[in-house]
Amino acid sequence: MSNKEKLVVVKVGGNVIDDEKILETFLQLFSTISLRKILVHGGGKIATTIGKKMGITSQYINGRRITDDDTIDLVTMVYGGWINKKIVALLQHYGCDAIGITGADGNLIPATKRAVTDIDFGWVGDVDWKNIPADKWKVFIDNGLIPVVAPLTHDGKSHLLNTNADTIAANVAAALSHYYDTQLIFCFEKNGILTNVLDENSTVPFLNFDNYVRMKESGQLVQGILPKLENAFFALQNGVDEVVVGHSNHLAELISGTNGTKIILGN
Amino acid sequence: MSNKEKLVVVKVGGNVIDDEKILETFLQLFSTISLRKILVHGGGKIATTIGKKMGITSQYINGRRITDDDTIDLVTMVYGGWINKKIVALLQHYGCDAIGITGADGNLIPATKRAVTDIDFGWVGDVDWKNIPADKWKVFIDNGLIPVVAPLTHDGKSHLLNTNADTIAANVAAALSHYYDTQLIFCFEKNGILTNVLDENSTVPFLNFDNYVRMKESGQLVQGILPKLENAFFALQNGVDEVVVGHSNHLAELISGTNGTKIILGN
Repeated sequence: MSNKEKLVVVKVGGNVIDDEKILETFLQLFSTISLRKILVHGGGKIATTIGKKMGITSQYINGRRITDDDTIDLVTMVYGGWINKKIVALLQHYGCDAIGITGADGNLIPATKRAVTDIDFGWVGDVDWKNIPADKWKVFIDNGLIPVVAPLTHDGKSHLLNTNADTIAANVAAALSHYYDTQLIFCFEKNGILTNVLDENSTVPFLNFDNYVRMKESGQLVQGILPKLENAFFALQNGVDEVVVGHSNHLAELISGTNGTKIILGN
Repeated sequence: MSNKEKLVVVKVGGNVIDDEKILETFLQLFSTISLRKILVHGGGKIATTIGKKMGITSQYINGRRITDDDTIDLVTMVYGGWINKKIVALLQHYGCDAIGITGADGNLIPATKRAVTDIDFGWVGDVDWKNIPADKWKVFIDNGLIPVVAPLTHDGKSHLLNTNADTIAANVAAALSHYYDTQLIFCFEKNGILTNVLDENSTVPFLNFDNYVRMKESGQLVQGILPKLENAFFALQNGVDEVVVGHSNHLAELISGTNGTKIILGN
């Protein structure tokens, strides 16, 4: 038994954020968790909606969105402003002492602009997780503040970077496992990892690495879940105690281990 | 002599923010100040530009802008997202450990929605300055973090509120004078308080309350400077040690007292 304090890092995805009612329900659940905690939120479709109004249309190469100059400004406004501050104001209303941040704030998530290979992704960040200042995060957490993290980092050269929220959650959880027993919860609109994507009741209670590889190779796992699972295994390999994937409506049960899919390394 | 540490609260206005070059020069100057410090920034014209693109046009009553539902969303994005995070990323680049916040973050600036009298200003906040949690600000400041404050507060009922940046600066400086010897600097595009608005060399080195009233009554003070001076006198009456008004290019000299106009209560 470790005598570290427990810390829960919760990632909530875009589909939850896009629905005001579902988001409010989730944030009420989040506010009642009486553990040290961090919330990482994704982007949601609102950036696309606002971008259209402003005449900004995203470019895609091979189905991957490119973050050009206009797009990084747009997501800085929408993710770092609109979504982040709405979540903070709601959590404060629910009695949860939230503080909204990006990776630039306090240099809490250093990153580098993704190198150009066959694709130039533009202003996209890869987290430099070994340099996440865990001691600085600890100041916030131990003073009762609950960081609410927008999916943005920076390169230290004055540029903000669009950064995957699952990756941020996994990297921050890994870095903070130096000080805490960290549990990482990926919340989305499914009940967990499903053996049949059309059947919400086909959730598997556990998924280990071998089964993940098998399911991936057999095509059972839908495209969107793969990066989430890669981040889950990264976290487990780098100090995170437990990773659970499941529905945002069941947050308390995901934390207590009575719902969702627990991701595990071995058998 | 007090044995409190010195803290400088710097407010930088919209005109500085609207010009990228001037803003960068100012932020470089700000980053070199080797004192405990806070930066409060105004809104700038970019909100209007982006609002137009999005089809949001501000309503005015008696020349006062009304913050309706669309406008509070707009300024949350632009002030809390775009401007705030750009400033943070630039300051981090200059080696200044900035952390961007609104009054909702950590409930650092509690406020109430302005009561409807003859005008309904909409989602506009009046700072509840006696409840500013100075101890919480102190945690940031004493850990080497430099708060960068967007002109937004919240009502604790989940609503963000558009809030005057001069007022935020004066109120935060007053609240923090409990722990620090606070100096409040209002930076803008003029060299200080001018006896002749057309002559940049007509700066007065000092302005006391009696002279302020005299200049105001004689119509010597332009409309825009009046709320700034009201906030300056409020600050001096509520524990702030020194208030200086002057040009953003002269930040170091404003702090050392060799430039700008020093606002004083007595003679």
